[in-house]
Parts: sequence; structure tokens; C-alpha cells
Amino acid sequence: MAGLRIAMLAPISWRVPPRHYGPWEWVTSLLTEGLVARGVDVTLFATGDSLTTAKLHSVCPHPYSEDPEIDAKVCECLHISEVFEHAEEFDIIHNQFDFLPLTYSRLVRTPVVTTIHGFSSSKIIPVYRKYNHHAYYVSISDADRSPDLEYIATVHHGIPIEDYPFCDDPDDYLLFLGRIHPDKGTHEAIEVAQRAGARLIIAGIVQDEEYFKEMVAPYVDDDQITYIGPVAMPEKGELLSHARALLHLINFDEPFGLSVVEAMASGTPVIAIDRGSMRELICDKHTGFLVDSEEEALKSIYKITTIDRRECRSWVEENFTQERMVEDYLRVYEMILKQGEQR
Amino acid sequence: MAGLRIAMLAPISWRVPPRHYGPWEWVTSLLTEGLVARGVDVTLFATGDSLTTAKLHSVCPHPYSEDPEIDAKVCECLHISEVFEHAEEFDIIHNQFDFLPLTYSRLVRTPVVTTIHGFSSSKIIPVYRKYNHHAYYVSISDADRSPDLEYIATVHHGIPIEDYPFCDDPDDYLLFLGRIHPDKGTHEAIEVAQRAGARLIIAGIVQDEEYFKEMVAPYVDDDQITYIGPVAMPEKGELLSHARALLHLINFDEPFGLSVVEAMASGTPVIAIDRGSMRELICDKHTGFLVDSEEEALKSIYKITTIDRRECRSWVEENFTQERMVEDYLRVYEMILKQGEQR
Repeated sequence: MAGLRIAMLAPISWRVPPRHYGPWEWVTSLLTEGLVARGVDVTLFATGDSLTTAKLHSVCPHPYSEDPEIDAKVCECLHISEVFEHAEEFDIIHNQFDFLPLTYSRLVRTPVVTTIHGFSSSKIIPVYRKYNHHAYYVSISDADRSPDLEYIATVHHGIPIEDYPFCDDPDDYLLFLGRIHPDKGTHEAIEVAQRAGARLIIAGIVQDEEYFKEMVAPYVDDDQITYIGPVAMPEKGELLSHARALLHLINFDEPFGLSVVEAMASGTPVIAIDRGSMRELICDKHTGFLVDSEEEALKSIYKITTIDRRECRSWVEENFTQERMVEDYLRVYEMILKQGEQR
Repeated sequence: MAGLRIAMLAPISWRVPPRHYGPWEWVTSLLTEGLVARGVDVTLFATGDSLTTAKLHSVCPHPYSEDPEIDAKVCECLHISEVFEHAEEFDIIHNQFDFLPLTYSRLVRTPVVTTIHGFSSSKIIPVYRKYNHHAYYVSISDADRSPDLEYIATVHHGIPIEDYPFCDDPDDYLLFLGRIHPDKGTHEAIEVAQRAGARLIIAGIVQDEEYFKEMVAPYVDDDQITYIGPVAMPEKGELLSHARALLHLINFDEPFGLSVVEAMASGTPVIAIDRGSMRELICDKHTGFLVDSEEEALKSIYKITTIDRRECRSWVEENFTQERMVEDYLRVYEMILKQGEQR
């Protein structure tokens, strides 16, 4: 599909790719770079400090989450209107931004496909419902589909597996990697590690300050339980590949778990609460364990050596690479253009 | 201009017309009803509980300021997109909503005129600047014009003067009417009334709770200083027409002051700090006094009987009626349609 002109509309909460946290921006970057590598003509609408091999079109110089002076609502609407005002220059607009761009989509002829990265609240679903028969929706897992909406495809995220070191001979620590937030089960990971008498390294940004203060910090002793803040590559790769297991004891129906895939890519099995997309990401008993309780998570730790770490990596090689994601989206674009011809 | 099809895009923070507070919604209602009376084909895009003789088109059943369950951002974008998706059914879209609709305006052929009811922050000006040469802007006073923008006209608000009783023989109280907020100078009105040894009645919604608690409530003694909450017609008319003077000792460049015009319509002179639009609304020494300090405000109280209360009313009859506002906007619409023909 050389010559295909894609407008990639990124969020502007963070840079593309993000400096540390920012999963939507990260996936947008991975897809954009992968498409460019495949010869697709991509214009990335993102913050001005973004890094890309695509053409960069920006209205907001910096991400609003990094600059309290920025009025997010003002920046968002100027950013979104910009892509729609240039709609005729593109074959497809790919919206990675959330619901607001949908409300501009009926005013242009260019088809708009939206990757729904998750529903921040059920209150936003009416917007998706209004544009259900006009827009094209991609879910990031089957688990995250809303029964109210129609989807053109599920496309699981994929990562650049070549960037992840593999280690078959891990250290003795367990790992928590993600936002420090009750949803992510940081406290549950601490409890399980303590009961197992195992070391736990906690890495990630603090998203919920109060939770961190009350439920995490008091248990950090810099010996058995360590908190090291957010990590980026290449440190992240080292940390992941040398962990005995990733503890992913979530308290919500997570739409996708990038850290789960990253861990498996590094050879590290994942012990996850069986909610949301987890059973789409983890091959139970082969690349980790799907569990329903801390009790079961604890038992899984004792069985962790039954997992072949090479199988974890090959599972990701087969299912969760950046290339596979790019191919999936190219197929989505093709379907949309075909449907457009028939309209 | 019979047959003219206007889409009137109201804010959805309050009902149209508002139950008590909501100046943008009130002006939108006055203009809409006035246009319908003149035979214009108006479709009012507003909350579903709005009251109008125009056609009502609504997406949001209730105002978001009256229902904490509503996600304002979701409602706003569904409300705005709705009018633009119907753009072809109208000769002009009249935006009373603020900046967000501008970002949809280049995607439709129908001209969009925006009444700028004020700049909530200088951070929103970039949106107006972006659409400066595409959109049409109306200022609500010359004082409120931004030097960065071009305007097609200033249209002062007008009120239905026939609803306001006139009284030539007032009681002995001074009146404060407006939001309880530092901007509006509630505390200054108290100080001036106390120094004059005069009664003061304070009416309006509490917008700033802390200010009310610290700077207003401690002075309310239910004898000299009274607070009666928000008032609506017909009580408001009685209150206005029997006041000795309205104290409007503002601490900001007020874009327009509806209560100032309402007071004069009732025969009540206004003592106002000479900022913002005040010198466009008050005829100094004839319908009130423009002052620079509390000292001067105090002196004005002693001179208040030099004002002919009939002159106050006729000043409003000549300059600030609903009919005049409707005619001004009809002229604006005509100019826009003529410019459209020339494009």
C-alpha cells in the first residue's frame, strides 16, 4: 500500500514517543514508525517536540501534561481541528486521540478510523454510539469491546521485540512495572512478595499520590521491597529480563497491558489476575499464570520454574510484535478503502 | 429578512432562558425570541428543557451546571457537532457558545458568527486568532474588544424594557445585584453603604463561597446590610425600581453589565467603577456616576437626587432594548450574507 496517505492523530498529553509514561503515545509512535518503514506516507499530528520519521504536523509545541501553563481544552481543539481542516490531503485519518475527534468526522469526506484505547468512563460511550455507523472502531482487545459498538477489528498492540534483551537465567526478584495506582495492584504485589518471602522491585510513575503514601511507601524497606521510580530503555530491558516473574495483580478490566507483553518478550513469565485482556495476552501455564486471588498468585510463584522462558519470548515473537501490529492496521486500512469504494 | 434560517447555538451550562443566573443563556433567549417575533426562522440548539418559540433542537436534556452526573465535555461536543452536522439547513450559524464551535467552522460552508461574551482567560484567544479571517466576531462592548481580533460589529445587549416596572419615588436602600464574587465588588458596596449610613440589599448567587464567608456574610446584620439570595422577575423588578441607586463597584473590566441596564430601565441610577464597558452603558451624571474609588462612590450617593430617574429609563428605551439588539443582529446577518455573495 505504498502511496497510501495516512493522517495519524496522536494525543498531546505526552510527546510521541513519550519520555516515560504515555501508552497511547507510545503505541502511536510504534505504528507510525512501522508504517513509514513499510513505505506508507504518514503525517503525524502530535506535539511539536515529537520525534518521528513521518512528516510532523504540530500546533502545540509541548505536551500539556508537562506544562501546567497550557490550557488543555484550547490545545486539544486546535490540534484536532487542524487534522480535519487538512482532511482532503489524506486517504484515511487514524484517530488515536479518544472521542473528541469523532465529533468532527461527519464534516469531512475522508474516512476516520479510531483506535479505542479504553473508556475512561462509561459517560464517554454516548459519543462513540452516535458515530457507530459512521466511524470505524478498532478495539485493542476483545475484552475491551463495548456491546453497544460495532468494530472493524481488534488489533493487539505490538512491541519492537528486537529492543528487548532475553535472559534465561534470571535473578531472584519479582517485578511490578506500571503506574502506581490501585487499579494496577501495587499493594497486592507487595503482599504476595512478602508472603512468598521474595524480593520485589517496584517501577513506574506515581499516578495516585495518596495510594502511594498509604499503601506502598510504608512497605518499601529498600531491601525486600524497593521502589525505583519510572524506568526507560535500556534499564527497563535489563530489569524485565532479569526478573523471576512480573506480578500484574490488577483490580480492573485492563484493556491491554503493554508491560505484560514486554515482560514475556524478555523471557519473564507474568502472574496476572484473570481480568480484562489478560487471557488474550498470556498463555496460561505456558507464559505465565492467570489467577483469581493473591492466594493463587502466591502458589504460582512456587511453580514459576515450570515456565520455559524461551516459550515466553517466542509467544511474543509470534503474536505481539510491532510488525504484526503494522500489518493488522494495513489490513484495516485496506478494508476501509474497499468499503469506501462500495459506498 | 423573512425566510432567513438561523441556527442559534446556545451554551448548555444553563437552560435557555436560565432559571436564575446565566447571562449568556439569557441574551441568547432574548435574541431568539426577538428574531422569531420578526418572522425569522430560528432553530435553537440548547438544552432539552429550554423554553422557546423557535424550533428547539437538543442533544442534552438538562444543563450540566444543574446536574453533576453530566460529563460537560461529552455534552458540549455532542451539542456542538449536532449544529454543524445540520449546517446546510441554515443560512447562518450564530454561535453564543464560546470558542469550541469555531474549530468546526471551517469544515462547513455555512457562515458562522460568534458573539464573544467575554474572554474567560487570555489562553483562549489563540482559538479566536486562528479563525480571525474566517469567522465573524461580534463584541458585546467596544471595551471588550481584543486588539488581536477583527470584529464585524459591537452589539450591546438589550432587555425587554416593558417587563421592568418604573418607580420615580424610591425607598431608601442601595442595591447590589449580581454574582457574589470579588470581581463584582460586593464587599466594596458594603463598605460604601456603611460609610454612607445607608441600607444595602445584596441579591445574587454566591459564586465564590470563601469570599462570601469572609468578606460578605460577617457584615450582614439583616438590618442595615441584608442578603436575600438570587431574585427573579417579578421580585427583581420591584427590588430594582425601588432602589435609591445600584452600587456596581467592580474590580474587573466587565464586558457588559446586564444589571446596570436593568437598574436604569427601572429608573434607578447606577454608581459604577469606571472600568470595562461601564462608560458605554452609563451616561455619566445623567443616568448614574462613573467613579474611580470608594471615596467618589460615597460622594455620588449624596448627589444621587440630582439624577432624573425618568432620564434613566428613557436612556434604556433609546439604547438598550431587546428590539434594538434584534435589529442590530439582523444588520449583522445581512452584512454576512452580502459578504458571502461577494466571496
